[in-house]
Amino acid sequence: MSTLPQNLQGYFRWIQKCNGGLRGKEKYHPWTVGKSTVGYLQPWLFQKLQADFPGVFKVSLSCPQSSDAVGSLILDESLKTCEERSAALAGVLAQLRDEGVLTGWRSELYPVLTSFQGQPLALVERAAAVHLGIKAYGVHVNGYVETERGVELWVATRSRSKPTWPGRLDHIVAGGQPHGLSPGANVTKECGEEASIPEELARNAKPVGAVSYEEMQESGLKRDVLFCYDLQLPADFVPAPQDGEVESFQRLPIEEVAEIIANTDKFKDNCNLVIIDFLIRHGFIRPEQEGYLELLAGLRLGPLS
Amino acid sequence: MSTLPQNLQGYFRWIQKCNGGLRGKEKYHPWTVGKSTVGYLQPWLFQKLQADFPGVFKVSLSCPQSSDAVGSLILDESLKTCEERSAALAGVLAQLRDEGVLTGWRSELYPVLTSFQGQPLALVERAAAVHLGIKAYGVHVNGYVETERGVELWVATRSRSKPTWPGRLDHIVAGGQPHGLSPGANVTKECGEEASIPEELARNAKPVGAVSYEEMQESGLKRDVLFCYDLQLPADFVPAPQDGEVESFQRLPIEEVAEIIANTDKFKDNCNLVIIDFLIRHGFIRPEQEGYLELLAGLRLGPLS
Repeated sequence: MSTLPQNLQGYFRWIQKCNGGLRGKEKYHPWTVGKSTVGYLQPWLFQKLQADFPGVFKVSLSCPQSSDAVGSLILDESLKTCEERSAALAGVLAQLRDEGVLTGWRSELYPVLTSFQGQPLALVERAAAVHLGIKAYGVHVNGYVETERGVELWVATRSRSKPTWPGRLDHIVAGGQPHGLSPGANVTKECGEEASIPEELARNAKPVGAVSYEEMQESGLKRDVLFCYDLQLPADFVPAPQDGEVESFQRLPIEEVAEIIANTDKFKDNCNLVIIDFLIRHGFIRPEQEGYLELLAGLRLGPLS
Repeated sequence: MSTLPQNLQGYFRWIQKCNGGLRGKEKYHPWTVGKSTVGYLQPWLFQKLQADFPGVFKVSLSCPQSSDAVGSLILDESLKTCEERSAALAGVLAQLRDEGVLTGWRSELYPVLTSFQGQPLALVERAAAVHLGIKAYGVHVNGYVETERGVELWVATRSRSKPTWPGRLDHIVAGGQPHGLSPGANVTKECGEEASIPEELARNAKPVGAVSYEEMQESGLKRDVLFCYDLQLPADFVPAPQDGEVESFQRLPIEEVAEIIANTDKFKDNCNLVIIDFLIRHGFIRPEQEGYLELLAGLRLGPLS
């Protein structure tokens, strides 16, 4: 029987990787709606938006009280409503798509907001969330089985044709949080779509907290809060790929999952954080291990709001 | 059947109460060992220590780079080892006890440290931890039963003769983390001493994370990290007071516990945070409730180290 990694350093790699954006945030240009900073832009996109869309984005006059040395953009203040802002941004994003800047269009709207339960200031195409550096939300489900041998976790292998993270390991069910759907309803929907988990089983998914991070990606800043769920599944349940996003499912002993996280890059980056949270909540990582508290702190380094 | 509070405001009272020290920290004077700030002193104690113990505490020369406008104390740098520092501090604390400043002497040593797994810089009497504003650690055990009616939590009523929090509700088992004992071993020991939980049951206690806070108390700053444990108990197990610290035990439906936390001051302050963490981890508080993420963030506002 394999054992759990005793040294936590392998886990800390993921805290570092998923929070590169927090360390390098001064390189990004904030953009605001009214007085609220809602996102962060890479320098090239900051330049492009002010050059190509002067009617939508204005350059902020620098404020001596802020440390805003890099300059920021303000969404044109004549755009007063969520609808007006969404329409203006939709025009911008469609042009970026046509120019090949934005790829992987999803036709799914994400809200632009400063806190999860706040009113959306605008709605934008999901594919632009990282480019615009807006806060985004998601749900991740730890689907596990209690066996005589111990806890086993259902793990998906992502389809090799997926535009993002092809072939990487993933949760049995995970998804972005679109506008207009509660996290709980989203879990039930994704359970059906991604793993053929029937609704009466999916309803057992239990919200257990959240992780947050700000990852530096090639296209921009991925600023995520992931609502974590635990779903204990019957030993005889077998998930089945449904919507083509998953290539296959396998059930792995928790020790093997921990080993993969600590020593390999097989999991999609953010899954590592959610599973480390699972390992802590289920007592597989213990206070006696050096770095326990720092690891715990590392799971919620992005703003929790 | 009672239901869980939908509005989270009653829970937020405890985030506020237990973190008053974070908001008012500028009123306290730091004290340091070498370059490490290890604690915070109220103005009267800052004055007293420099006046009465000039051989042990020196006033820091103010550093232009720090915001240390209130002044700070340095433990005499001629005290080079943990033993020397402990001996010098023991003399100081014994005098404070004899003068009636320090009450509730425990004859139990707490380490003075900057992080949990770091080497102690000194050992001091537990009763002085809040006066000295040092980081302190503890273990809290959620002892619960899964019944047909739902989850029920074992709750202790503290003895009315206890010097601290007499008569308040408490966890079935909780205790400070003394020097030289691991959190897990401390849980097993306290399970026996406080509730007569036999070792084979106590061993099922599962570490599930931690909460942290900095509470402003009358005697000083209570800067705590509490390691949280879940202990699922058999339905027929009944805890029994053992060491006189507990007056009685009762088993309450989780809805009633939540109601008490949201609407009363019956629980010892820090128990509220640990039970709110339990409510979140077990899905009794849900992402759809307004303030969910902010409540989650509020459970770990003190430094996690």
